[in-house]
Amino acid sequence: MSGRSRGRPTGGEAGETRARLITAAREQFAARGFAGTSLRSVAREAGVDPSLISHYFGGRHGLLVATLDLPIDAMERITGVLTEGPDGLGERLVRTFVSSWDPHRDTISGLLRSIFEPDGVQGPVFQFVRTVLVDGLTEVLDGDAVRADLVMAQVIGLGSARYVLEVDPLREAPIEDVVALYGPAIQAVVDAESPRS
Amino acid sequence: MSGRSRGRPTGGEAGETRARLITAAREQFAARGFAGTSLRSVAREAGVDPSLISHYFGGRHGLLVATLDLPIDAMERITGVLTEGPDGLGERLVRTFVSSWDPHRDTISGLLRSIFEPDGVQGPVFQFVRTVLVDGLTEVLDGDAVRADLVMAQVIGLGSARYVLEVDPLREAPIEDVVALYGPAIQAVVDAESPRS
Repeated sequence: MSGRSRGRPTGGEAGETRARLITAAREQFAARGFAGTSLRSVAREAGVDPSLISHYFGGRHGLLVATLDLPIDAMERITGVLTEGPDGLGERLVRTFVSSWDPHRDTISGLLRSIFEPDGVQGPVFQFVRTVLVDGLTEVLDGDAVRADLVMAQVIGLGSARYVLEVDPLREAPIEDVVALYGPAIQAVVDAESPRS
Repeated sequence: MSGRSRGRPTGGEAGETRARLITAAREQFAARGFAGTSLRSVAREAGVDPSLISHYFGGRHGLLVATLDLPIDAMERITGVLTEGPDGLGERLVRTFVSSWDPHRDTISGLLRSIFEPDGVQGPVFQFVRTVLVDGLTEVLDGDAVRADLVMAQVIGLGSARYVLEVDPLREAPIEDVVALYGPAIQAVVDAESPRS
């Protein structure tokens, strides 16, 4: 934004570079999946220096999020929920999820549906869920990926029920009711002792 | 099966009548949804007496289940879980769900995907979930439909994660581990006091 970076495009040129990187990333994620896409090849297709990806997007995940064109800063919100650790994680996660997406029901519904399409698991939405939410949860849960998967299952289930399937009366239940009822359910998985530990 | 019913088709004729009813029901559920389909119109299209639907399928829900051509008797299993009441419901539900569908992963994956397709909410799979699982849960939970919806959300989330998204390591986690970790999470919703009560 300041244009003070060394040798980097500025102003309108920067906006265009950014847009080219997003377009190239979308195409390569779609064709090769997130894991199979290198920043170098995205930069090459966009005709820019690979270092610009870190500059504009902070890295791979930031680029992935940019391709989703989300109405909220999902990565920042998830990180905010996770950095406070396991205590109260269930309630924080439910409150943040529902209050973030209630104003954008059509968007989250489309994002969730995309996960269930053929090859949806390779798509950017689920790659974001897996690498940001699940990997972050796994770290908070001392490496227990089964519990992280089960927390993700609950979040996807809640989002599906409230925004995609729109079941009554859950679809219009007050946020604090959902937090009070579902927060402890997620917390039960967070607090569980792993059967293998 | 015994052929002793009065004036009803028997043997091969019975199988054909049953198949005609299922075909007619599939078409009408697809065109009008479960709620918009009358047994009378299904029977008319199949060219048989409406009483035969109760005879062969035990009623509307049985006919719905028959159109799904499930490899397990899902209605009987759900009823079995629910009739024992709220105590231990979480563990029973998780154990029954996972042990029922682990041998039929492709089937449950397809059924769950169908819910997320356009108009999937009107389709027979979700109508079955809503009218058998959710309505049954609502009864067990003293009429609290929000909690019933949230239990459904957890079941759909678990099924999606284990069978559709197939996240590692959850997809191959031993059934008893899943029961031990996820049963209490569902039980937390079952045991929660409704914020409105």
